[in-house]
Amino acid sequence: MQRTSFAAWECPAARALESVGDWWSILILRDAFRGVRRFDEFLESLGVAPNMLARRLKHLTEQGLFERRLYAERPARYEYVLTPKGRDFFPVLMALFAWGNRHLADDERAFLLGDPATNLERDPVVIDARTGERLTPRNTVHVPGPAASAETLRAIEFARARRAER
Amino acid sequence: MQRTSFAAWECPAARALESVGDWWSILILRDAFRGVRRFDEFLESLGVAPNMLARRLKHLTEQGLFERRLYAERPARYEYVLTPKGRDFFPVLMALFAWGNRHLADDERAFLLGDPATNLERDPVVIDARTGERLTPRNTVHVPGPAASAETLRAIEFARARRAER
Repeated sequence: MQRTSFAAWECPAARALESVGDWWSILILRDAFRGVRRFDEFLESLGVAPNMLARRLKHLTEQGLFERRLYAERPARYEYVLTPKGRDFFPVLMALFAWGNRHLADDERAFLLGDPATNLERDPVVIDARTGERLTPRNTVHVPGPAASAETLRAIEFARARRAER
Repeated sequence: MQRTSFAAWECPAARALESVGDWWSILILRDAFRGVRRFDEFLESLGVAPNMLARRLKHLTEQGLFERRLYAERPARYEYVLTPKGRDFFPVLMALFAWGNRHLADDERAFLLGDPATNLERDPVVIDARTGERLTPRNTVHVPGPAASAETLRAIEFARARRAER
């Protein structure tokens, strides 16, 4: 996996990508939310090579999104269970899922989301918890946090100047 | 870029990943929301190799997330402007950003989100537009859509059985 590490980048979205790892890792997390827990189950669901799967499960465990639980002793077998940090990734998957479905025609949709209590369809949207407003590029801007470097301040200033041009 | 194509997979999250491309493409979209438009601006912001950047911009344009606009004629130079489909990716970035920041200590945060009208901090959460409920793995399940194949139905049944076990 030759690529630049994003870890040093200050943007939390870049850090989040680094922490998760890659596309496969997102699909592994997706499967975990569907109840997949065992190595062979992930293997079957994803059709990925065993060594690639093992590497990604190890990365996600090291990053604190999964914990391993022994479920058989001889030979030792582990289940991969989402930690609170891993479960907290659910909204990202919902946003991605919604974007994917929104750009398909109705009759191309294979998966929808539902409320298990009422069977009514779910429609995921991202809002600001404080005001209830839907977040848009117009009503949401970057603000420097306590760890902002000069480079981050420059990126924020650049965005502000470009907004002002419009 | 040797990897399996996810295009044939029915899950809209998998299709979304395929459509976007890879990590770099998400960071390119992030930069676009910060007002970055020109090749050299992306290059400077991302520190990526020019041929890699060109390939990703081409992919995102082919997938309908960017459109190219001529801004200089000799030599021809283009800006990359988000289309409605590209702008619609904003909530995914917000969810990813929020997840990243939530797993950093307060004093490690370099970027925050703000409301430009009030300067108050934004707190992105994913809710169901119909009921206003926050989406969680407990209150949101998969439901087959019109295009569901036998394999999709099996995945949904698997998830339902695993939920029932809990």
